[in-house]
Amino acid sequence: MAIRTTVWGENVHERKNKVVADIYPTGMHTCIADALNTGTGISATTVTLQDPEHGLTVEKLAQTDVLIWWGHAAHGDVDDRIVERVCDAVWGGMGIIFLHSAHFAKPFKRLMGAPCNLTWREAGERERLWVTSRNHPIAAGLPDHFELETEEMYGEPFGVPEPLETVFISWFQGGEVFRSGLTYKRGAGSVFYFRPGHETYPSYHDANVQRVIRNGVQWVYNPALRIANPNDAPNTAVERALEKIEERGPRLHHAGEAGFR
Amino acid sequence: MAIRTTVWGENVHERKNKVVADIYPTGMHTCIADALNTGTGISATTVTLQDPEHGLTVEKLAQTDVLIWWGHAAHGDVDDRIVERVCDAVWGGMGIIFLHSAHFAKPFKRLMGAPCNLTWREAGERERLWVTSRNHPIAAGLPDHFELETEEMYGEPFGVPEPLETVFISWFQGGEVFRSGLTYKRGAGSVFYFRPGHETYPSYHDANVQRVIRNGVQWVYNPALRIANPNDAPNTAVERALEKIEERGPRLHHAGEAGFR
Amino acid sequence: MAIRTTVWGENVHERKNKVVADIYPTGMHTCIADALNTGTGISATTVTLQDPEHGLTVEKLAQTDVLIWWGHAAHGDVDDRIVERVCDAVWGGMGIIFLHSAHFAKPFKRLMGAPCNLTWREAGERERLWVTSRNHPIAAGLPDHFELETEEMYGEPFGVPEPLETVFISWFQGGEVFRSGLTYKRGAGSVFYFRPGHETYPSYHDANVQRVIRNGVQWVYNPALRIANPNDAPNTAVERALEKIEERGPRLHHAGEAGFR
Amino acid sequence: MAIRTTVWGENVHERKNKVVADIYPTGMHTCIADALNTGTGISATTVTLQDPEHGLTVEKLAQTDVLIWWGHAAHGDVDDRIVERVCDAVWGGMGIIFLHSAHFAKPFKRLMGAPCNLTWREAGERERLWVTSRNHPIAAGLPDHFELETEEMYGEPFGVPEPLETVFISWFQGGEVFRSGLTYKRGAGSVFYFRPGHETYPSYHDANVQRVIRNGVQWVYNPALRIANPNDAPNTAVERALEKIEERGPRLHHAGEAGFR
Repeated sequence: MAIRTTVWGENVHERKNKVVADIYPTGMHTCIADALNTGTGISATTVTLQDPEHGLTVEKLAQTDVLIWWGHAAHGDVDDRIVERVCDAVWGGMGIIFLHSAHFAKPFKRLMGAPCNLTWREAGERERLWVTSRNHPIAAGLPDHFELETEEMYGEPFGVPEPLETVFISWFQGGEVFRSGLTYKRGAGSVFYFRPGHETYPSYHDANVQRVIRNGVQWVYNPALRIANPNDAPNTAVERALEKIEERGPRLHHAGEAGFR
Repeated sequence: MAIRTTVWGENVHERKNKVVADIYPTGMHTCIADALNTGTGISATTVTLQDPEHGLTVEKLAQTDVLIWWGHAAHGDVDDRIVERVCDAVWGGMGIIFLHSAHFAKPFKRLMGAPCNLTWREAGERERLWVTSRNHPIAAGLPDHFELETEEMYGEPFGVPEPLETVFISWFQGGEVFRSGLTYKRGAGSVFYFRPGHETYPSYHDANVQRVIRNGVQWVYNPALRIANPNDAPNTAVERALEKIEERGPRLHHAGEAGFR
Repeated sequence: MAIRTTVWGENVHERKNKVVADIYPTGMHTCIADALNTGTGISATTVTLQDPEHGLTVEKLAQTDVLIWWGHAAHGDVDDRIVERVCDAVWGGMGIIFLHSAHFAKPFKRLMGAPCNLTWREAGERERLWVTSRNHPIAAGLPDHFELETEEMYGEPFGVPEPLETVFISWFQGGEVFRSGLTYKRGAGSVFYFRPGHETYPSYHDANVQRVIRNGVQWVYNPALRIANPNDAPNTAVERALEKIEERGPRLHHAGEAGFR
Repeated sequence: MAIRTTVWGENVHERKNKVVADIYPTGMHTCIADALNTGTGISATTVTLQDPEHGLTVEKLAQTDVLIWWGHAAHGDVDDRIVERVCDAVWGGMGIIFLHSAHFAKPFKRLMGAPCNLTWREAGERERLWVTSRNHPIAAGLPDHFELETEEMYGEPFGVPEPLETVFISWFQGGEVFRSGLTYKRGAGSVFYFRPGHETYPSYHDANVQRVIRNGVQWVYNPALRIANPNDAPNTAVERALEKIEERGPRLHHAGEAGFR
């Protein structure tokens, strides 16, 4: 069965900025989804910030194996309840990919637990991405490096936790470097951050960028059943202990009582 | 100079539950601070949930090198603004230690970006902590294992991200295991989670537990100057690029404009 | 195409010890390979220490996607040239799984770069394995824990590097714990260590153990083309630099000369 | 007490190559040791490949808290017994720093368990090192980045395992990037790899480079007692089990017998 992928687009600059609209006439999210739908094994749809519940209803998330997130101008407009819902879905096993300026998206910051900041410069300079983990599934089919002739610069220090693996590091013409491909696990869900994709440049039309996103979808995808309540902290009663024990000493909780939160 | 350590105590059960009050007549936080003040190199004070701003004013945090957090019954009563302030301090370089039921404390969940859940049983059973990272500074002076005769059980799966290092794993009499000592870095700050310390048992009077906490303070402590604005994402202007570049292509931002958040 | 899996068996105790021979009349390696061949997607064959080149000829390794290694009594009899050949294959992208007493196998020690030691007791005690990374592909289809009624005890500290992920932790009846499922990457190859499988107990007949090994094969398998020379350190000539530079200063090497080793 | 640091120098090019001899008239090892001896807290001595047992006698290693390794032209001349001795010391708790071309030194390859290869170019190009882990003790006192005007290029992919933490990433003028500061733990010992230091350039005279090495010495140093036999795998007899158990089933080993290796 195809991996049900939902591409979440902020969809602001595509409608307000002529440069962006010319590059992505149907929206960045649509460009990304189209690229994913070209091959087999992935079935991508799109939702946007402007949809009711930002398109991320309980039902939609339940039918989403992998969520891709692109946002920039309107991070603050994302409803905190939707952010919690997305995090819960990830913790339950949904895969998620954050692209470019989503480093400051609310769900990314929540999942990282870190400032997620960086340095930046918008000058259309050359970016060259180097593969740092050879034969990593996310780098499948790529050469050792590839270039994007015009991109926004993001520079270190990148305020994220040490990843499971660093998959790409970028070289920038102006003298900076950046960890451009990073993997994490949060709860039962896998997370991939991928740097390229400033909206005034045609990065999501690039074949290598598309390939990385497609590989990323397959890497974060987990076929296991979603965990129904990923925040559950079940009490194991003394009489059901796996090894026979006898209760000793005082206790706070009555039998069957839920824990504190 | 001594490491300025602030022990944050929820201070609820000590005042409401006779068993807890008998074990910790001056509060768990005071017991922990007293133990830290016994040796040299650490200067510990206490604050509680009931203090104005929970005792964690901007001034107090500025004078805190290491914060220790114990909470259980009243996680929900902690003001979200204080949680943000604590996270900012950690991201700026303050060390932090979370003890026992603080696995569900708001700042821990925020820093982990994960559900932080577990299984539990309050039966006064035996816990045996094994050192899994030999000669780790946090285990300095400890034998390969030590025991707590009566403790609450916490069991895997523990819903936290893969740590930098697993320092302790606990064996429980009833048949469970738990990663009891875990290290992380978030922003510029080091984080240590340490499991023991259910309030109805005298764990913080235990010499080995006290030693781990003392070692933990030294490990999370960072003498570097606190980063003033750990969330800053500075723009590097084209004309100040480290390598000479020329601006190309369209851009969204005017010169000197701040980035989106 | 099925994952071509080679099960390497030391095949010593099966022939010399009646207890082991009774449990594994055709050898432990055959029991493991049979279990892998039951399902679809994996095609397993066996080789043993006694085969020429221990069965691990250049040709055989070239046709091996995943190698499984079980050894115990005869670690020292493994030819160092074969060890190097195996490590090179892993570095080039071959997946590898080390079982139980293979913690002291030469290729495991070489790939870990660490002492790989532990404590042990052969008393037929109960082992309970807990999943510590929820929904990890290696734990697919397993409950949160499973038991082996009689197993050898392995105890912490386990002298291995911090893994990419800790997938299982074992509880032992006699009071110890052990990190029983650990993942690593070395060069382009993925590595999985899985603890159970003392030869005097029927662990490889256990359905859960078989499932973990099957999942493990799928996890360490990498469909990418094997890297031909995984030790290559190519010189990039000045005139072929990706960014135009001019040579400056003195140099040690003549143009086209290989680097030192 | 000062950290007893031994700087191991290959000492080949300093004697054979006029360029190197002019930059390091008393040897690179002496330059490094002199820099370490400038401050307080570190007491550095030197040994070289040409010394008996390469200067790394049992006695010398027993008195070495931290070993620094620089080698390039003569990796193959290092005696395998000395390599094992060094690894044993690390596993027992000795700190170790590998510099530049020591990426192919025997003890580094042994401790990494990986190919440790890279791409390279000797063109005296500009290297800029970026701090990727803010306030990391190894980066203490450094700005966010620093430059070396002429250095050899090392490029990704760098064939090493995922580190505990990536501390520095280098930008090179010719278009490559490289993870220049990486931390590991092997057995009880901490390991730091630091990239700069090609022998035809004056990198070890650079104040920032010296500062990193000094910080590195402090970071890898572990005051704990060296583990006497870091490879020991002790048997825990049934009658000394921490929890009372009864032996069940058959066993291979007689009471008190050592395990297989």
